[in-house]
Amino acid sequence: MIDKAKTVPVWHEILHIDKETGARAGLLHTPHGTFPTPMFMPVGTQATVKGMSPRELEEMGAGVILSNTYHLWMRPGSDLVAEAGGLHEFMRWNRGILTDSGGFQVFSLAKPKDIVEDGVHFRSHIDGSKQFLTPEKSISIQENLGADVIMAFDECIPYPADEAYAARSSARTTRWLERCIEAHGTTDTQALFGIVQGGMYPKLRRQSIAEITAFDLPGYGIGGLSVGEPAELFYEMVAETIPYLPADKPRYLMGVGTPDYMLEAVRFGVDMFDCVLPTRIGRNGSVLTKGGRLIVRDLKASRDFGPIEDDCQCYTCRNFSKAYIRHLLKADEMFGLRLTSYHNLYFLIDLMNKAREAIFEDRYSEFCLEFMDKWGDGRNRA
Amino acid sequence: MIDKAKTVPVWHEILHIDKETGARAGLLHTPHGTFPTPMFMPVGTQATVKGMSPRELEEMGAGVILSNTYHLWMRPGSDLVAEAGGLHEFMRWNRGILTDSGGFQVFSLAKPKDIVEDGVHFRSHIDGSKQFLTPEKSISIQENLGADVIMAFDECIPYPADEAYAARSSARTTRWLERCIEAHGTTDTQALFGIVQGGMYPKLRRQSIAEITAFDLPGYGIGGLSVGEPAELFYEMVAETIPYLPADKPRYLMGVGTPDYMLEAVRFGVDMFDCVLPTRIGRNGSVLTKGGRLIVRDLKASRDFGPIEDDCQCYTCRNFSKAYIRHLLKADEMFGLRLTSYHNLYFLIDLMNKAREAIFEDRYSEFCLEFMDKWGDGRNRA
Repeated sequence: MIDKAKTVPVWHEILHIDKETGARAGLLHTPHGTFPTPMFMPVGTQATVKGMSPRELEEMGAGVILSNTYHLWMRPGSDLVAEAGGLHEFMRWNRGILTDSGGFQVFSLAKPKDIVEDGVHFRSHIDGSKQFLTPEKSISIQENLGADVIMAFDECIPYPADEAYAARSSARTTRWLERCIEAHGTTDTQALFGIVQGGMYPKLRRQSIAEITAFDLPGYGIGGLSVGEPAELFYEMVAETIPYLPADKPRYLMGVGTPDYMLEAVRFGVDMFDCVLPTRIGRNGSVLTKGGRLIVRDLKASRDFGPIEDDCQCYTCRNFSKAYIRHLLKADEMFGLRLTSYHNLYFLIDLMNKAREAIFEDRYSEFCLEFMDKWGDGRNRA
Repeated sequence: MIDKAKTVPVWHEILHIDKETGARAGLLHTPHGTFPTPMFMPVGTQATVKGMSPRELEEMGAGVILSNTYHLWMRPGSDLVAEAGGLHEFMRWNRGILTDSGGFQVFSLAKPKDIVEDGVHFRSHIDGSKQFLTPEKSISIQENLGADVIMAFDECIPYPADEAYAARSSARTTRWLERCIEAHGTTDTQALFGIVQGGMYPKLRRQSIAEITAFDLPGYGIGGLSVGEPAELFYEMVAETIPYLPADKPRYLMGVGTPDYMLEAVRFGVDMFDCVLPTRIGRNGSVLTKGGRLIVRDLKASRDFGPIEDDCQCYTCRNFSKAYIRHLLKADEMFGLRLTSYHNLYFLIDLMNKAREAIFEDRYSEFCLEFMDKWGDGRNRA
């Protein structure tokens, strides 16, 4: 491990594998510290996790956070961030950072004809200016930003997509990965993860895995899942994908962040997750609880002076009542959104910590059953 | 002092008076702690200082915060707050709280014919429902809220107002004060402050002072200033008012919170201030600096990696650059508003702390000159 650290800035140390499932408990070592896995990564799109301060994120136990290459490229510009000393210094976050490639946003802004072999033509969502993103450009921006983990430029294949398109797109993602690796200079400080695609076709998924992992990268993302497909298909793809990834590398299931999906993916050996869900639903006045989502804003019981969850140790629950949070949300007070967002982020970070404990104790399946029994379908309730 | 504490829940201990001016350095003792004066009180209209957490307010050195009776009466209701254990418990603020009477908001919602001897008829700004606020009702609501200092129900006379109106209104404020005192039951835990009015007429001001202070209350507010009058008139009224107030009681200049006005009022012996300015301009992307207001949002120098103020010890300035804050504001990120609001609140709290030090050292005039030399006219600059 120590030898490996000399050449690979980020690596995953597996400490225990649950005896019954393939769930893994480990440590992700990065230039900005070592963090427990499985982990949930809060999303800080524009160099800030919406509503949170860096010290609040530290307090709630966040290890690695995710930031978005496309957004920072457009505003304030990656050269400005580089001049500030990199993203860690710019936003004053001294733990881990992972940046995506910008591909996800750029594909959503582009028309099919704008996607060419060299890259993707699109217009900025801010000023409408013409832009062009390529694998080389994505790596260059991510090197400017200076995250610990950077992601290869890929196409996140939408759902549904026919098999021919998925095959062509996945093959291009592999070719783009090769260009990313070629362009990547800061291999001693930034770990490049490749991304597996393949649509909803197990054969294409396995082919993509074979191609992507052939490059022996420090870690791998699983892309193109949780993009609108039915739950059964998601579960099938997880089961058909994860076992084919190299056992000794971190596995990052991109954009996934509902408790049920995360727990199922951990079962198959996924180590990392990210999702905007906790801050997004927090800003809409909803919170995650063991019994599913709760719309605090619409709570009928305005006189409920208990916390969101009795046994939750987060700053919100240790201090504030549902009645107070409901009042803040009804009065459109910023602090209400801070409190719901804080709780939701803590909920998912803590869920992964509890899953990790269960893995060490070889009772991961039991843990999932207990959790899902209370969670049910996770539907909103007020 | 100790004897007095037994019967008066809030009292002011003067530790030093500046030898040249009448500026006072002291301590305000309350059931929730003792706080240095002169003091700036952050405004927490709806049971939250906009954007801030209680622990951030503590960290920046806030002692007493102000909350608004009208707003809390309308939403969530003062009976709900009482059921939560009072405002301190509801919003988890363990230091001092002062509530206004609700008069200011109610008068702004009422037509002249709606103001009668018994009280003020108006319609709720939330649901348009008919409401009636009286001195007795204001005290009852404030007793439910449970602040350390509660304010008498008065009319804040608008500017301009003719002398006959100002005289009639001030006389009614005195009659209403008598009813407030009569209605006030929790005299052992909540200090009732009377409010001096009199418009912009020195004779009426002095008459109001004579009437209000005859009740020997634990403290006095000075109302109806900084309501749109020219600066010279404000300064004249401060000079014509403050010296007539009892020397041994705390003096609270209501709604004043620009550095120049605060420093001038401290010179004449004012001890307490409140204003929405720091959080309001913070939410508009402006910050207070020793050189006047700075519109961070419009900063041309997007690559200014220094703090808002080099020698400021606040959380914002100790950690974040103008370039980062500007980015957050341009990107409409909540954390930007948190950082500007934090700095602005700290700026005014710290200004009062520095004024206090200067008073102890008998160099208050010098301190004001030095400050105003840099502050200039305090105009916005970007």
